[in-house]
Amino acid sequence: MKQVKPSRSFASDNNAGVHPQVMEALAAVNRGHVIAYGDDPYTARAVQKFREQFGKDTEVFFVFGGTGANVLGLKAATQSHHAIICAETAHINVDECGAPEKFTGCKLLSLSTPDGKLKTSQMGPLLHGVGFEHHVQPKVISISQATEMGTVYTPREVKSLSSFAHENGMLLHMDGARIANAAASLGVKLRTITKDAGVDILSFGGAKNGMMYGEAVVFFDKNLAGEFKYIRKQGTHLPSKMRFISAQFETLLSNELWRQNAEHANRMAQLMVNELARIPQVRITQNAEANGVFAELPKKYIPLLQKHYFFYVWNEETSEVRFMTSFDTTESDIQDFISLLKKTIK
Amino acid sequence: MKQVKPSRSFASDNNAGVHPQVMEALAAVNRGHVIAYGDDPYTARAVQKFREQFGKDTEVFFVFGGTGANVLGLKAATQSHHAIICAETAHINVDECGAPEKFTGCKLLSLSTPDGKLKTSQMGPLLHGVGFEHHVQPKVISISQATEMGTVYTPREVKSLSSFAHENGMLLHMDGARIANAAASLGVKLRTITKDAGVDILSFGGAKNGMMYGEAVVFFDKNLAGEFKYIRKQGTHLPSKMRFISAQFETLLSNELWRQNAEHANRMAQLMVNELARIPQVRITQNAEANGVFAELPKKYIPLLQKHYFFYVWNEETSEVRFMTSFDTTESDIQDFISLLKKTIK
Amino acid sequence: MKQVKPSRSFASDNNAGVHPQVMEALAAVNRGHVIAYGDDPYTARAVQKFREQFGKDTEVFFVFGGTGANVLGLKAATQSHHAIICAETAHINVDECGAPEKFTGCKLLSLSTPDGKLKTSQMGPLLHGVGFEHHVQPKVISISQATEMGTVYTPREVKSLSSFAHENGMLLHMDGARIANAAASLGVKLRTITKDAGVDILSFGGAKNGMMYGEAVVFFDKNLAGEFKYIRKQGTHLPSKMRFISAQFETLLSNELWRQNAEHANRMAQLMVNELARIPQVRITQNAEANGVFAELPKKYIPLLQKHYFFYVWNEETSEVRFMTSFDTTESDIQDFISLLKKTIK
Amino acid sequence: MKQVKPSRSFASDNNAGVHPQVMEALAAVNRGHVIAYGDDPYTARAVQKFREQFGKDTEVFFVFGGTGANVLGLKAATQSHHAIICAETAHINVDECGAPEKFTGCKLLSLSTPDGKLKTSQMGPLLHGVGFEHHVQPKVISISQATEMGTVYTPREVKSLSSFAHENGMLLHMDGARIANAAASLGVKLRTITKDAGVDILSFGGAKNGMMYGEAVVFFDKNLAGEFKYIRKQGTHLPSKMRFISAQFETLLSNELWRQNAEHANRMAQLMVNELARIPQVRITQNAEANGVFAELPKKYIPLLQKHYFFYVWNEETSEVRFMTSFDTTESDIQDFISLLKKTIK
Repeated sequence: MKQVKPSRSFASDNNAGVHPQVMEALAAVNRGHVIAYGDDPYTARAVQKFREQFGKDTEVFFVFGGTGANVLGLKAATQSHHAIICAETAHINVDECGAPEKFTGCKLLSLSTPDGKLKTSQMGPLLHGVGFEHHVQPKVISISQATEMGTVYTPREVKSLSSFAHENGMLLHMDGARIANAAASLGVKLRTITKDAGVDILSFGGAKNGMMYGEAVVFFDKNLAGEFKYIRKQGTHLPSKMRFISAQFETLLSNELWRQNAEHANRMAQLMVNELARIPQVRITQNAEANGVFAELPKKYIPLLQKHYFFYVWNEETSEVRFMTSFDTTESDIQDFISLLKKTIK
Repeated sequence: MKQVKPSRSFASDNNAGVHPQVMEALAAVNRGHVIAYGDDPYTARAVQKFREQFGKDTEVFFVFGGTGANVLGLKAATQSHHAIICAETAHINVDECGAPEKFTGCKLLSLSTPDGKLKTSQMGPLLHGVGFEHHVQPKVISISQATEMGTVYTPREVKSLSSFAHENGMLLHMDGARIANAAASLGVKLRTITKDAGVDILSFGGAKNGMMYGEAVVFFDKNLAGEFKYIRKQGTHLPSKMRFISAQFETLLSNELWRQNAEHANRMAQLMVNELARIPQVRITQNAEANGVFAELPKKYIPLLQKHYFFYVWNEETSEVRFMTSFDTTESDIQDFISLLKKTIK
Repeated sequence: MKQVKPSRSFASDNNAGVHPQVMEALAAVNRGHVIAYGDDPYTARAVQKFREQFGKDTEVFFVFGGTGANVLGLKAATQSHHAIICAETAHINVDECGAPEKFTGCKLLSLSTPDGKLKTSQMGPLLHGVGFEHHVQPKVISISQATEMGTVYTPREVKSLSSFAHENGMLLHMDGARIANAAASLGVKLRTITKDAGVDILSFGGAKNGMMYGEAVVFFDKNLAGEFKYIRKQGTHLPSKMRFISAQFETLLSNELWRQNAEHANRMAQLMVNELARIPQVRITQNAEANGVFAELPKKYIPLLQKHYFFYVWNEETSEVRFMTSFDTTESDIQDFISLLKKTIK
Repeated sequence: MKQVKPSRSFASDNNAGVHPQVMEALAAVNRGHVIAYGDDPYTARAVQKFREQFGKDTEVFFVFGGTGANVLGLKAATQSHHAIICAETAHINVDECGAPEKFTGCKLLSLSTPDGKLKTSQMGPLLHGVGFEHHVQPKVISISQATEMGTVYTPREVKSLSSFAHENGMLLHMDGARIANAAASLGVKLRTITKDAGVDILSFGGAKNGMMYGEAVVFFDKNLAGEFKYIRKQGTHLPSKMRFISAQFETLLSNELWRQNAEHANRMAQLMVNELARIPQVRITQNAEANGVFAELPKKYIPLLQKHYFFYVWNEETSEVRFMTSFDTTESDIQDFISLLKKTIK
């Protein structure tokens, strides 16, 4: 079976390149000198775009990457004796090499979730030690939107968590590496599932939705942002040539490019789900509400498929795999993969 | 005096944009999917370029920015009870908002230097506490090449510091944010003032020499690099779309673009010095060996000049200012500024 | 029911005072001046006592308290990107207010255990991420001996864990706040369940076995101890008037006072268990192998008992309580409490 | 010259033992069980003693040792991007193995002082970077009272520093390891040079004034103390058998024992100064305002004297030595030493 290696995989949305409009924007701002570190007109315009989305009191800080955005946002909300509640599957818990603990000093209290979504009903036991100095003090609930399991919190679910957090003296942090996919999935505005649902701090993702690099830490409460410029610099995430991140964000937030990219990726995931669902040997394991598809395949086929397409095995024991789609996934990418899968299984 | 704001300032080499060849390289690698986090062919090629410069045993890790490169490189060399010796003017000492202390836990022991260059003769007193647990233990000497004062260590000076370091159980770290300017100034290979002069860890700068973003942490001793991949990830500096940093470095290290850019910037600094030297009210205060020019001007003229050109006052008391040139500074930029200066002083 | 408040409770073995021989030792060394920070003859003698127990290659460092001993011992074994595996109920996990995370930067990976004892069979999934920089790297298994649930690891169980640790490039740390109770329970030497069973680092408890203050960090591998004097000082645990800790340890390790104290406490726990077992409304929930007794009581009786005796409710949901005995618990303390319990229940 | 080694040296006030009244207090509270961690009547009484000295709004927390007291008090006042201003000779700067940097993450900005005393006139340059994110932000001025050079700040000098601190949005921290010696020297109440002079946070020393172990972190502003119980526990300085620290402090603060001890030590230092002043080969180098005496001796005599008396060489280059007196130094200790000195010099 002779086959050319395809140019797009399903490994992750960060295996994709950069959206052409974003690339154009980078070239467009590459003229002359501007003041470094964000005191430039491009950054002012990009911040304005964020305020159009989230309200004029929003404070926005650009950083290089997603782990930085999460860690520094959490630092702004905590002291080292605090705890951060998150799902066991959360990126901050399993995919950041302990960066949150290292930089904030906090303990992460993780909860088991079948679908990657925290529920307030799980949190009672974590509050038993409040006020007792022997125990870390829960201060932040951190959720991922969309989750690492490809699911999406509804506005009501986010609101429920933020209310619980606020009633218990805590804050709600959202890892929005895929916030665009979530808003696109729900067909709502970005602010509906963030500011309007009570989120306090948001990591707004860029790289997984067509940018080259750059994420934003967004504060809906100005007080929380008061010292953040120092936290960002001390946290080694103050870009010198800031304009090049700003230009990307301005592009993404103009003409709803963020939504177009995300909707496309989500649609491709749906197509994948629909095709997989017709194959009896495959079992879909999560609701594919964003751009991730989780499915169990007979173990023996996985290495055969991986010869041609790169994707991750999520759970070795159950032979569950993950397929991620991205802004540049095409229908024929899906169809070609499905063909290969069918041929392989037959 | 009607005057159009010029498009290039002398504030800093990071106020410049991106070199056209670098921009082209970014577009060129923007095709299809590649594995994230550095396991891609572009990164392999860029690493190869570094090994051509520094020897095949060199270990290279790309990170987002310069403060990150310094801090993480120092982390790889220290435990928290160690001390890092540096010049009072060092970037790690005054311009990183305490990031080295925060991330490594170490104390910085800073030494006063007239020209930004450390000398072994200053270090004796810092070694008095070696072996005594009440005192931090010096473990790293960190120097900047070129220095923050626009001067350049000769290979012999670097060698002297590395020998001293090694004889005393220490390592030599080099903040090479402007390593290209130093090598260009001396007319030597990059390895002559780094590996061959006994440097152990190098922050290799990209952004100040025509790149958009990206720095490299370079280890000349493989053992030091052993755990660095974890330090980089925990340090929030593992870029997901790594290919775009790699492509920039590959370009910079091809056809000696790094040297062309640096030589040009250095030459512009020389031109500036030559012009300033003819103006009696101006006193040059440092040897402009790289791309920075330090000079004292009568205080009253500074705000008048700053209306048109952005540059920094280095020392309020002595009204010393700093002019930085960059790869894109033109001769007419210098001449225009000198004209303005002359008109202002007259 | 008129009743005098008893002078001893079952809240914890650290609610007890100081053993008379220890108090005498403190007075005995209170003569003249000696060099501070441990360079004194009393400390040399105490260290010698440890070497008699654990072998002459043992390195011993005294610190003020138990949390300090744990945290600093773990610091000596880890870098910040490492992970420490422990039981969910471990003191380091739930009772140290996040001190291990704060000081080491490491993540704790906790495992659920019915009896507070880790098993090698649980650890497979924690090793999946070894070698991948996105994940913390397991470096230490930390166990408590006796456990927080009043159980004791056999020498064979400890050996099994140390072998697993060493085979996987990890170390075995033991929180021995109640190491004496464990050795007394098993009727073995201290070294049988530590050095000889492959433990690498031991927190050797003093305060819970009749000392006023002071714990020891014991290294069975000299290499691990190499930098510990700096870690202790930077960790704020280098006592100036060290002789007063040393004198206590010398006393505890002379004439097997440590074992007498621990055996007595264990025996009192057995007596408590035997008495409780005869009361039908009480259910013993753990094997009381050391000096802690866990039992479920009808909820309504608990506050009535707590009017007279201080003890902790371990699990609100199941109304499980914990009774700790100590070196100074008397048989009549137990009998008086049992009488009250019977009267209360009737 | 046959000579018996004397039982008291001049090395440090922490080479002394424990005051007899303190030792008695330890024995007196060693009865029965009390709740651990400070919720006991002895601790309540000791705190009350502090409030009698410093006012009823004072918040007091006992910790094991002096470095812990300093570091944790500073942690309560800072975020990691802050800076702490101190004298170059400050204990926190040179004698704590970098513990302040490690635990707070802050940079220490040290100032050169001839006599160990900071002056507001030195601080201007340190404030140049306020508001700029590239630079650490000064938040605390930390002074030692008495200083490490044996000098004492007057109430007016302390007030001047606290006013400067507060006017610039900073706090004043006092390392009072020898606060008793300072108050005794000035003949004032403890509160005169602390709370009433605008100090915000005080490390109140015990071990250098006759206690076995134990220091207090004292907050004059309740708000600063709000989270300190967690900081203390996470900082590994919550003693389990707290009553034994409390009993010592209660004794020290009863019947002005603290002042008697300190006055005696100070008087012995004066005697030493008076005797040394008569010896032409000796030059007193600091005003001996507390219990430390600094003097230059001909270098060759130092090892001869150190055969009999342990004391520290403070400055190798100038052969300056330090003699510390303590609560138990006797007149004949001084006279014997002076005799030896005279014999040695002759």
